[in-house]
Amino acid sequence: MNMKIAANDPKRKSWVPIPDGSDFPIQNLPFGIFVNDGKPAHVGVAIGEYVMDLHALFRAGFLEEFDLTESMLENRFLNDLLHIGKKKMRALRDRISDLLLDSNESLQQHQEVYGSILIPMDQVEMLLPIQPGDYTDFYSSIVHATNVGSMFRPDNPLLPNWKHIPIGYHGRSSSMIVSGTSFHRPLGQTIVKDGDPPIFGPTKQLDFELEMGFITFDGKPLGQRISIEEADDYIFGMVIFNDWSARDIQRWEYVPLGPFLSKNFASSLSPWVVTLDALEPFRIAGEKQEPAVLPYLQYHGEKNLDINLQVFIKPDGSEAQLVSASNYKHMYWTMEQQLAHQTVNGCNVRAGDLYASGTISAPEATGFGSMLELAWRGTKPINMHDGTTRSFILDGDTVTIKAWSEKNGLRIGFGEVTAKVLPAIPFE
Amino acid sequence: MNMKIAANDPKRKSWVPIPDGSDFPIQNLPFGIFVNDGKPAHVGVAIGEYVMDLHALFRAGFLEEFDLTESMLENRFLNDLLHIGKKKMRALRDRISDLLLDSNESLQQHQEVYGSILIPMDQVEMLLPIQPGDYTDFYSSIVHATNVGSMFRPDNPLLPNWKHIPIGYHGRSSSMIVSGTSFHRPLGQTIVKDGDPPIFGPTKQLDFELEMGFITFDGKPLGQRISIEEADDYIFGMVIFNDWSARDIQRWEYVPLGPFLSKNFASSLSPWVVTLDALEPFRIAGEKQEPAVLPYLQYHGEKNLDINLQVFIKPDGSEAQLVSASNYKHMYWTMEQQLAHQTVNGCNVRAGDLYASGTISAPEATGFGSMLELAWRGTKPINMHDGTTRSFILDGDTVTIKAWSEKNGLRIGFGEVTAKVLPAIPFE
Repeated sequence: MNMKIAANDPKRKSWVPIPDGSDFPIQNLPFGIFVNDGKPAHVGVAIGEYVMDLHALFRAGFLEEFDLTESMLENRFLNDLLHIGKKKMRALRDRISDLLLDSNESLQQHQEVYGSILIPMDQVEMLLPIQPGDYTDFYSSIVHATNVGSMFRPDNPLLPNWKHIPIGYHGRSSSMIVSGTSFHRPLGQTIVKDGDPPIFGPTKQLDFELEMGFITFDGKPLGQRISIEEADDYIFGMVIFNDWSARDIQRWEYVPLGPFLSKNFASSLSPWVVTLDALEPFRIAGEKQEPAVLPYLQYHGEKNLDINLQVFIKPDGSEAQLVSASNYKHMYWTMEQQLAHQTVNGCNVRAGDLYASGTISAPEATGFGSMLELAWRGTKPINMHDGTTRSFILDGDTVTIKAWSEKNGLRIGFGEVTAKVLPAIPFE
Repeated sequence: MNMKIAANDPKRKSWVPIPDGSDFPIQNLPFGIFVNDGKPAHVGVAIGEYVMDLHALFRAGFLEEFDLTESMLENRFLNDLLHIGKKKMRALRDRISDLLLDSNESLQQHQEVYGSILIPMDQVEMLLPIQPGDYTDFYSSIVHATNVGSMFRPDNPLLPNWKHIPIGYHGRSSSMIVSGTSFHRPLGQTIVKDGDPPIFGPTKQLDFELEMGFITFDGKPLGQRISIEEADDYIFGMVIFNDWSARDIQRWEYVPLGPFLSKNFASSLSPWVVTLDALEPFRIAGEKQEPAVLPYLQYHGEKNLDINLQVFIKPDGSEAQLVSASNYKHMYWTMEQQLAHQTVNGCNVRAGDLYASGTISAPEATGFGSMLELAWRGTKPINMHDGTTRSFILDGDTVTIKAWSEKNGLRIGFGEVTAKVLPAIPFE
């Protein structure tokens, strides 16, 4: 892959004001879907404290050399735009970057730029950016897998397949919600004591899972593999992902076919998809993998990413409190390995599919990626500043995850994913 | 639900000739998607040996009182049409039945009826009828669960949760293929001996799974349950489903998160969706469930279905041979229980979702629903008429599943789902 991506040049400055510490400098330019003023949903790009309306930009004649249509840009989801593929999306991002460059006057001097093409972020509502045809959740953090394994299988925390396979399973796409959407505590079957019949009611062990996810372009036809060398060409970008989980429901239902109702009631996505291109400066070496993985999973170069992660819990009526500080770099399996594995049997991927990392846990207890681990199955409750404690998430709690990469003064941020937990809807 | 469905009247006869033993009498009228003559895909209804083109019927003015649009009927999938919901789809089917009634001359005497509105079935190509937003695979046959459990966990064949939960998991929707589509044998990781490192190559244990699936209308918003009494209002119809499986890949990968690459390389659907309405005459009592299930899963009335099932294997260059004869009635959990369970935590369902039964096995060994069970893990290979034996499916084999209900001279058929297995694509 050609790594000369014009938009990534750290020397670039925009004529759009970028506040200090902004997640969205000219080197980022993430894509999302927004509405404002009751108009139809449009594709937008974040720049500083503005959303650039790509549909308006297209109609103003600034994107004529690209094979775009109005319906790709006036669209409820990014999927249709993603059909144009990696090369054209890269060229589009480069073009947007050029238009935003301080030395470029063409858009800057356009009469309607503020208000029509650049809309203040606080005036728009962000929507779910993609309509996933399929969503896979991996399980690729060795600390998380070992932590959870040691709770449920003390003698055998890491299963024999774990270091050979980027373990994953298919999740539910219908219940994905964009950041800011609250949801009700789910009900389900749980077991009080092994051997007793199950009881039914609201989960008592609602948990977050600190995850990132990547979104694909169209892959190859059914039956054809995406090799690990090709994988990056099929990855569009990344989002923050909170894979809400009900641990008590999960424990009772998950054998032998995996998690089902314990996961599919809600999964929260951040609204801005940060392109893989924008993250290239933050590539780092992956974890050493021993035993050696099979050839189809072997890779060269720096394929992990340095992305800072933070989780906050805000009790109702109280302040948000940092409960976990971690990093994406603690992944054992890379995105490229995940995608090569997903397709090695001929399984096809489609534009707008989501592939989540699985819970990311740092080696230190302060960076675990779920309440299950942070409070160690309820044995070490977290003390909250308001005097309460947390073993799991309570009604009224708002959980927020933030993610950003930072290096040599360049900050590429994801914004945040946040959701408030509402009480269960009683069963009549 | 009002059970007076005009189209189901067994006394109805059509002016379209219905051959003896046809799957598609006037009492059936299943929906599908077809193409012919290079024209765009249209919604069709099967009648005898013809496909009724609903788009042509609409344009000829025969469906004017329905809230339909051309784009619902000139469409690659049924999903858009299904947004109209159960009541309107029932009224539409009743109307089509009226137009096909021998006593009704309006359509019969229409000038272009044959060739334009009624197209010979052998002149059309059937396509995948739905674009599933999500696909769930249940595990609802007690014989199958016990058989497989006894192979892998002899001491504990049926897990403690099985009689309390309609166990299910999320499957892959991208790799669904319509009947008649061949696919390549998948490659993957397998274990030769426990404790050895995995090897990589084509599966040696490719299997079919005899399943049926149901397709939903739009459900309720995220967070709201569909009760078991309401479930039928959200079920559109059923298809035959072959959930192709690679047993050796499955055994190595499935702990702890369930099947993944062992299932997601291909799943075959029959092209005609038989409405739940058309199947009402074949309702029978469900299996007695002990211990009693939780209240949200308790139901009244006859909710199981009497649907005959047959599986054939046709070796390359040889004749098709019946290898299993079974019935949908061997399901322990009903569709209504599956849907009530799927949504009890607030998980939302969408028009065009697919919910598969899981492998259906009859109590008798002649009616097991997979090669794993029929050849009992390779210990009892099946003798084929051409002198070969089968423990699993070989390259060149074509597997066909047929399904139909029959009672008092009325036959409501599903047609068939068939697929040929091609050799693995070598790994370069």
